[in-house]
This record gives sequence, structure tokens and C-alpha cells, in this order.
Amino acid sequence: MAKLKIIVSPTSFFCTRIEWALKLKGLEYELTFEDWSKGKSELLLRSNPAHKKVPVLLDDGVVIAESKVILEYIDEKWKGGDLYPLLPQDPYERAQARFWAQFADDKCFIGTWGACRAEDAQEKEKAVEAALESFTFLEKQIKGKKFFAGDKIGYLDLVAGWISHWLGVLEEAGGLKILDAERFPSLHEWAQNFAEIPPIKECLPPRDMLVNYWTALLSRLRSSAPSKL
Amino acid sequence: MAKLKIIVSPTSFFCTRIEWALKLKGLEYELTFEDWSKGKSELLLRSNPAHKKVPVLLDDGVVIAESKVILEYIDEKWKGGDLYPLLPQDPYERAQARFWAQFADDKCFIGTWGACRAEDAQEKEKAVEAALESFTFLEKQIKGKKFFAGDKIGYLDLVAGWISHWLGVLEEAGGLKILDAERFPSLHEWAQNFAEIPPIKECLPPRDMLVNYWTALLSRLRSSAPSKL
Repeated sequence: MAKLKIIVSPTSFFCTRIEWALKLKGLEYELTFEDWSKGKSELLLRSNPAHKKVPVLLDDGVVIAESKVILEYIDEKWKGGDLYPLLPQDPYERAQARFWAQFADDKCFIGTWGACRAEDAQEKEKAVEAALESFTFLEKQIKGKKFFAGDKIGYLDLVAGWISHWLGVLEEAGGLKILDAERFPSLHEWAQNFAEIPPIKECLPPRDMLVNYWTALLSRLRSSAPSKL
Repeated sequence: MAKLKIIVSPTSFFCTRIEWALKLKGLEYELTFEDWSKGKSELLLRSNPAHKKVPVLLDDGVVIAESKVILEYIDEKWKGGDLYPLLPQDPYERAQARFWAQFADDKCFIGTWGACRAEDAQEKEKAVEAALESFTFLEKQIKGKKFFAGDKIGYLDLVAGWISHWLGVLEEAGGLKILDAERFPSLHEWAQNFAEIPPIKECLPPRDMLVNYWTALLSRLRSSAPSKL
């Protein structure tokens, strides 16, 4: 079998979650880095013409894009035997994992990002409040458990995994605080624990590099935003 | 087994796709209608506190929300034997169906809705162009096939099914044209065909009711939008 390839950006947690899944499955892979300073590569444009985004998984002639779609593909293609399962077996538990994974992306990440981008103080306060409300739902999901999936890392842990490393970066770059240990004790503990587990830790990009990247991105977005009247 | 219940709105295709799935599976269900004029029901708020949105499936004590999550749940819980499969078996084909389903929701529907809402002529033209580009990708997916899934209706047909009935409504309410038969011959033919298939057709809400609803909604959104300087 040809080795799996992932087209990635070094700063994107959507890419890192794919690496985590492949490591848990014990599959070998290689990374092809996009260099945004040179524009999007011909390989990326050809592989994912609909979105033109990373990550993209190249598996022996077939191409799969969109990180949560890729995670399910990996879990369905390499299953059974000793292979690590990402999603549970029970249809209801699977539905719960998918529901909260979508929520973590759409509400928790997009909410945090919106709060980072807000420039007006009142707008920022409102956006932070909305993000905090979303994180309250995740806190309830993890309360009393080691991982979202129970005793072992699963699909939802991988999707929410950015909280353990990238959220602090976003908080720093965006000048805000979300993951307060007193407000979110279970989520905070999960995040600390998750980032220390060897197959997770070894894929984490250096924090300084991420802070530089997201700070520069926010600054660029702010300077290019239409001025307000 | 207690009969399945779906909390629905009579105008939402996100709800109708669940009805279609249950009909294809041969499962009995009953509908609980939300009456928006009275605000959100206590049942909806309790069942889906994170999004407070329809559809919600109530299945013998468990609650599942988010339409694509519900479709997968239905397909995983009632599978095998004579039960109609919604998703294919092959991991790559499943990934493709999921990818294009997400695309149909995020790009084709949201794009069309954005074009409907645009008030400024130049902004509207740009939004229509972007929506047309997205539909071009779907046209390629259906070309040469009776259904997205091949010879039989599948998951992606159900998710893209709004195109066969609601898109014309949105075009009328929003004063625009997307699904031109010359530009999108295969998608146009699929849409015509899909809406005539008995289990699909019998769930379609009356067109006049939908036109009235979406026209009133657009008018309400426009009058409440902040005036532009």
C-alpha cells in the first residue's frame, strides 16, 4: 500500500486532528505542507477544487477533504481487529459524538474566532459571552469523564482537541479569556490531560509559532476590514 | 416500540429530509409541529437546548438533533435485511456523500439564501454568481446518473432534495434564477424526477404556503436590517 499523504498547513488544527487519528490507528503517513506565502499549491487546488482548503487526505488514488469527513473515512476504512476505534458502535452514541463535534466547530471555535476578530469593545464583550455560553454546553458533556468518549480518546476528543492547545493561542492573540479553570473545571482538566498524551503531544505545533501566526493574521484582517463610519 | 416523533416546522426542508428517510425505511412516525407565532415550544427548548432548532427526532427516550446527524442515526439504527440503505457501504463512497451533502447545505443553500437576502443590486449579482459556481459542482456530481447515489435515492439525494421544490420558491421570493435547465441540465432533470417519486412527493409542503412564508420572512429581515449609510 502506498503511504498515506495529508496536505496540511502547519498552523491548522483541522489538519492536526487527522494526524492524531492516523497515529491512534497506527497508520504511517507523510505530510505535504502548503506554503501560503506562495499561494495555494496546484496539488491542493486539484485535490479540493470545491473548497481549496486543507486538510486533504490522499489515499492510494482517492482524495478526501473536510476534516470531519476524513476522520469518519479513516475510522470506516481501518476498523476491526486491533485497530483503534474513533467512533463508538451504538447509533445513539455515534449521533451524540457527531452532534457535539459539529457544535465544537461551529459554535465554540467560530464563536471564539468571532470574539478574537471583534474590534469594538461592546461587540467583543457580546461575542465572548456567546462563546462562553457555547463552552458551557461542552463542559456538561465532559463532566465526570476522562474523555468525551469515556475512558479512551475518541472522535469528539479529536475534533475538540484544538481547545487543549490552540484556544490558549487564540486567547493570547485575541486578548480574551475563555477557558477559565473555575468556570470550566472539567473541560480545563480534560484539555490539560489531553495535550500531555504522547500521540497527541507529538503532533502539536510549537506554541510560539502559532501565536505569531494568529497574531499576524488578526492584524492583517483588522487592517483590511472596511473602516466603520 | 413507541412511535417515532419528529419536531418539525411545516416550511423547513431540513425537517422534510427526515420524513423522507423514515418513509424510505418504512418506519412509522408522527409529526409535532412548532408554531413559530407562539415562540419556541417548551418541548423544542428542552430537546435541543444547544441550537433550539428543528428538526429533532424523539426515539423511545432518546433525542437526536441536527438533520444530517439524524439521517445517519436513522441509517445506522435501522439497517440490514430489507431496510433501505441511505449511505453506501464503501468508505470512500460514504465520504463522498458526506462531503457533497455538507457542500449542498453550506454552499448551495447558504449561497442561495445570501443571494435572496442581498438588497444592493451589485451585491446580489455577486452572490448569485457565487451560488451558480457552487451549483456547477453539484451538476458535475449528478451528471450521467439518475440519482446522486446511482440508480436509487440515497443520503445525498435527501440532503440536496430541497433543490427540487424549495429552490424554485426561493428563486421566486428572492427574485433570482439559479437552476436554469440549459446551464444545469443534469441537476434540473434530477430535480424534476426526484420530486415526482411517490414517497418524496407526498411529503412536499404546498408551494403557495412556502412562497408566502419565505416572501414574508425576507420582507421581515429586510425591514429589520440596519439601514446602510
